[in-house]
Amino acid sequence: MLNFEYQNPTKMIFGRGTHRKAGAQVKPCGRKVLLHYGGESIKRTGVYDQVTASLKEAGVEFVELGGVKPNPRLSLVHQGIELSRKEEIDFILAVGGGSAIDSAKAIAMGVPYQGEVWDFYTGKARCKEAVPLGTILTIPAAGSESSPDTVITNEETTRKYAASSPLLRPVFSILNPELCLTLPHAQIGYGVCDIMAHIMERYFTQTTRTDLIDRLSEATLRTVILNGRKLARESQDYDTWAEVMYASSIAHNGLLGTGRAQDWSSHVIEHELSAHYDIPHGAGLAIVFPAWIKHVYQARPEIFIQFAVRVWDVDLSFREPEEIIFEGVRRLEAFYKEMGLPTRLREVGIGADRLEEMAGKAVAGGPIGGLKKLAQEDVLAILKLALE
Amino acid sequence: MLNFEYQNPTKMIFGRGTHRKAGAQVKPCGRKVLLHYGGESIKRTGVYDQVTASLKEAGVEFVELGGVKPNPRLSLVHQGIELSRKEEIDFILAVGGGSAIDSAKAIAMGVPYQGEVWDFYTGKARCKEAVPLGTILTIPAAGSESSPDTVITNEETTRKYAASSPLLRPVFSILNPELCLTLPHAQIGYGVCDIMAHIMERYFTQTTRTDLIDRLSEATLRTVILNGRKLARESQDYDTWAEVMYASSIAHNGLLGTGRAQDWSSHVIEHELSAHYDIPHGAGLAIVFPAWIKHVYQARPEIFIQFAVRVWDVDLSFREPEEIIFEGVRRLEAFYKEMGLPTRLREVGIGADRLEEMAGKAVAGGPIGGLKKLAQEDVLAILKLALE
Repeated sequence: MLNFEYQNPTKMIFGRGTHRKAGAQVKPCGRKVLLHYGGESIKRTGVYDQVTASLKEAGVEFVELGGVKPNPRLSLVHQGIELSRKEEIDFILAVGGGSAIDSAKAIAMGVPYQGEVWDFYTGKARCKEAVPLGTILTIPAAGSESSPDTVITNEETTRKYAASSPLLRPVFSILNPELCLTLPHAQIGYGVCDIMAHIMERYFTQTTRTDLIDRLSEATLRTVILNGRKLARESQDYDTWAEVMYASSIAHNGLLGTGRAQDWSSHVIEHELSAHYDIPHGAGLAIVFPAWIKHVYQARPEIFIQFAVRVWDVDLSFREPEEIIFEGVRRLEAFYKEMGLPTRLREVGIGADRLEEMAGKAVAGGPIGGLKKLAQEDVLAILKLALE
Repeated sequence: MLNFEYQNPTKMIFGRGTHRKAGAQVKPCGRKVLLHYGGESIKRTGVYDQVTASLKEAGVEFVELGGVKPNPRLSLVHQGIELSRKEEIDFILAVGGGSAIDSAKAIAMGVPYQGEVWDFYTGKARCKEAVPLGTILTIPAAGSESSPDTVITNEETTRKYAASSPLLRPVFSILNPELCLTLPHAQIGYGVCDIMAHIMERYFTQTTRTDLIDRLSEATLRTVILNGRKLARESQDYDTWAEVMYASSIAHNGLLGTGRAQDWSSHVIEHELSAHYDIPHGAGLAIVFPAWIKHVYQARPEIFIQFAVRVWDVDLSFREPEEIIFEGVRRLEAFYKEMGLPTRLREVGIGADRLEEMAGKAVAGGPIGGLKKLAQEDVLAILKLALE
């Protein structure tokens, strides 16, 4: 185990009816609030009315900025910063999934910063101050509700980059699984895939002697797989959503990354796909992850054997380690398919023509990955493995 | 899953050498610090010198109060409160195991409180203000380093009671597994048993649909069992201690209790044993827990079957559920014995004469327990099952 520091002060408010009490949570946090959200879905489902009613009841003054899209855009962040400064916002309440929350985090960093907010994503600047924020989660997937991270797409340059700061951990996050009951069916697979990726990118490590976090990760993966499968068949069960929604936070709140090196190259590679082709992040991950394993497993076969045996119950002869590893990958792919996800680029209409360009951009800042360092030719090999 | 709120802002600082940097952690927290610890062990091992050197180097002003004993006493708490008031202490640094930390928490509550600090333990008062505290953990067991709980023994009345407040979560906790290498061998079993009890008392619940937390609990239990066994054979391995030390915090930081009813009756019954006979808490738990299961399992057999199968790998016919449950208990007892722990009252010299008195005190505040409500006759039946 490696030395580590870990602190996660986000207050989790979990369960039925909790979003109707948002006002009471927001009230002590700020004088004037920016309510930040996505499209029409929260208006259609009544969540918007319930949350704004709760804010009004608590006497919270707020202004609104909707319009966050999947793969949230820098241009809307700029609007949010300008609006927040003009209105002297001192708290942001994001209502939505990872996109709304990540966009809110970008605005939170941008408001007190004199320069261009994109600097935080390119590594030019580090966040030293941010407007505090809270969240009401409507889509379990990104884990942004209890993470210090944000991912934003710069439409002008087709770059999709991440930034991170302890100041971006929400003050509180309200998780009500009832809000998941109205999600479109496709979102189940995308969400489950993103949650699993957040765990696996911490799980596949070169760090040795990591019993506890290995087992906690396997426990979370098995929970997501079991309940994801249930949701694919029957999406109206509160308790099944509760497991997936809670797991989404545990997967990405940092706990499962403590004491170990991590490998986020699959996310980096996927960000190129969704930045260039605007495909759902969860779909891109289902395509990239199996190919990534096939390319890198030799760098530490044991951990992929453990994954196959403990997560997928593979029970083959340990005398043929590769057979176990590939059976694990096969079950991972079969599960993705069961969840309605693509596992090859061709399935989402991506051909070979821009693979080299994306591979180049993925390693623009140098080799990526922790389990195995990936240069441009590695990323290209992974994308080719993912082709068909 | 039940609705819940969860917040744990304690900063965990984990790993080699970390206690030597205590001064830097303490410095921003207070102007004048009470250094609170147990007996001679931290002086013998050099930890005392290293910590005080770090405090001095950081320019932290501090006064000392040592002498905390296992099953920490109210009388020393009174001394600590008086000293802290006189010296105008505004931060407490506890160095030790659960006893030193629990004693520090009692002092932390008592200093700003006008009445008798024992009021918090009898339920007469609720903590509204407390001196902030940090910890340097030397014994993984109690989990107090990241919990909101404290347990104190009132020697005059032989009552051992718990109190809890979010204000008692440490600001930071420093966990260096190197400090475990000098622990007496008996402490391994006591610690492992206490850690397991903290998980099991949350695990055995009447709440249904608790996949994630069930699996996280089983993962933590399996880690403690695996690494506890290793320590019983070889107690000088850093990484093995690291697993147990980290697990001690996860077991009791509240995460594994989220979204479910809990059952702390084994702890309550054990507190009577250790208050009356001053036996180590871990030894008392090893005696009480198997007897408790035998008495209550019929209240929800499925969870005890799951425990036997998932934690102890029991693989018997599911047509005979009791056989599975009792094989699970048998393996739990066998593990305790392997860890050098007693599993019957006679082994620690406790006979039948005061069982009724202890049973009466355990339920003095009304029936105890969540999985099954226990009246005095139930507690007595459990203690009799534990006799020999």
